[in-house]
Amino acid sequence: MTVISKDTQLCLSLSGRPSNLGTRFHNFLYAELGLDFVYKAFTTDDLPAAIGGIRALGIRGAGISMPYKEDVIALVDELEASAAAIDSVNTIVNTGGRLVAHNTDYLAVVTLLAEHGITPDGTGRGPAAVLGSGGMAKACLAALRDTGFDDLLVVARNETTGVPLAAQYGARWLPALGAERPALVLNATPVGMAGGPAEHDLPVAREVVEAARAVFEVVAVPEDTPLVRLARELGRTVVTGTEVAALQAAEQFALYTGVRPSPDQVRRAGEFSRRPV
Amino acid sequence: MTVISKDTQLCLSLSGRPSNLGTRFHNFLYAELGLDFVYKAFTTDDLPAAIGGIRALGIRGAGISMPYKEDVIALVDELEASAAAIDSVNTIVNTGGRLVAHNTDYLAVVTLLAEHGITPDGTGRGPAAVLGSGGMAKACLAALRDTGFDDLLVVARNETTGVPLAAQYGARWLPALGAERPALVLNATPVGMAGGPAEHDLPVAREVVEAARAVFEVVAVPEDTPLVRLARELGRTVVTGTEVAALQAAEQFALYTGVRPSPDQVRRAGEFSRRPV
Repeated sequence: MTVISKDTQLCLSLSGRPSNLGTRFHNFLYAELGLDFVYKAFTTDDLPAAIGGIRALGIRGAGISMPYKEDVIALVDELEASAAAIDSVNTIVNTGGRLVAHNTDYLAVVTLLAEHGITPDGTGRGPAAVLGSGGMAKACLAALRDTGFDDLLVVARNETTGVPLAAQYGARWLPALGAERPALVLNATPVGMAGGPAEHDLPVAREVVEAARAVFEVVAVPEDTPLVRLARELGRTVVTGTEVAALQAAEQFALYTGVRPSPDQVRRAGEFSRRPV
Repeated sequence: MTVISKDTQLCLSLSGRPSNLGTRFHNFLYAELGLDFVYKAFTTDDLPAAIGGIRALGIRGAGISMPYKEDVIALVDELEASAAAIDSVNTIVNTGGRLVAHNTDYLAVVTLLAEHGITPDGTGRGPAAVLGSGGMAKACLAALRDTGFDDLLVVARNETTGVPLAAQYGARWLPALGAERPALVLNATPVGMAGGPAEHDLPVAREVVEAARAVFEVVAVPEDTPLVRLARELGRTVVTGTEVAALQAAEQFALYTGVRPSPDQVRRAGEFSRRPV
């Protein structure tokens, strides 16, 4: 770690349930790159006062997680295009007291779709199914729409969140896939997440993965979820949640520091951040 | 340095012109004592929002320097006795969102007067002169009053601040010492401060120091100001500004962490904090 001085810049995260991932990821890269920054996760029960404090104390950046991603919109000075695209914020950059909000989840999904050739033509113009109806599902739907997908499915048992989300992005809502065989399956549910109740499960039937051309996983831990493992066995195009998490964090890092870490540095920071402490 | 995690506690300072002293002092002791804390100096142009942010983010402690020491009173939940004694705050402790304000400058001066036997009897019941009329002069006047001194002088060219300060503590105001020969001379002006315009000067005539029994210096850098050097040559009882700074910082440290560093640790932290970077 570098020695902290009065000139060291502080970045932080706000989350209902802070984890160590961001703290370890960013501090690893600050040390690796010799940047005079320090990062720490926080929570709050007073979001307006927390954001006011970020502005008043000159805190350089703030990662915004659940449940603050939408409430924070009214508290910033400007929504950059990535946040405006989905009315959801996961990153605030403070430049001289002016707070600009971004969404690097959206940016990461758009970038990874392009990098892996997951386009409407690339997937044979079949439907793209997003599993889930939370904040990440929203970022993914917007990214798919903005990549040109026009046959979108929202697959979510929760009708209260699923129906309006589908309507917002011109998608069809389904409580379950049934006989649909989408060309792209994107998992934005917690199924497959380490330590969760569905850790060892697939979020869809095996036949759905067999019928798909590409699989996009959002669960980041473990890297090889049951969905990722099966899709790789079948030779499908695969994007992992680890790639999403690393790329969105690298985008945040670049927004805060002006320095873009190399892919190898991002990979090592990600590994460090997931290492048990 | 320890590795920062989500559970690391943040303390900070607020100052119109942040220095590195507190940041280096506290972080040195955190490392020395293996405490999971981190400290950084800040400034602000919006004190209410900064204090609101400290509360909302659960920042554990805040050192308060000029020009915020009095304005902050309206923003905290409770004034502890040391801050109430002088209506001036230099330390805020946040326990679960409740902000309690202290003044460790006052505490340090009271303690050092007692430790060095500087009492009305010890100084032959002659007058005690405080040079200066700023925040530190106020802390010293209150400490002298509460130690039993009842013949107090405020020596300050600035009549606007000197006259009301003297009135508040039942002291006599003098624009200059003139023929007065106080038993105790306490310097709360910047005269003798490294890098200042009066770095090589005494704050009073040499004859005043010769006539005094005790000298109390508030200037902390250098440790051996011209006043301290002369008083030592003359064999007077001497308290240095370095002692004041170290003791008030150690009191702050104990309030934030619940851990009281040893005198040797405080000495080494003080030396580290003053080392050129």
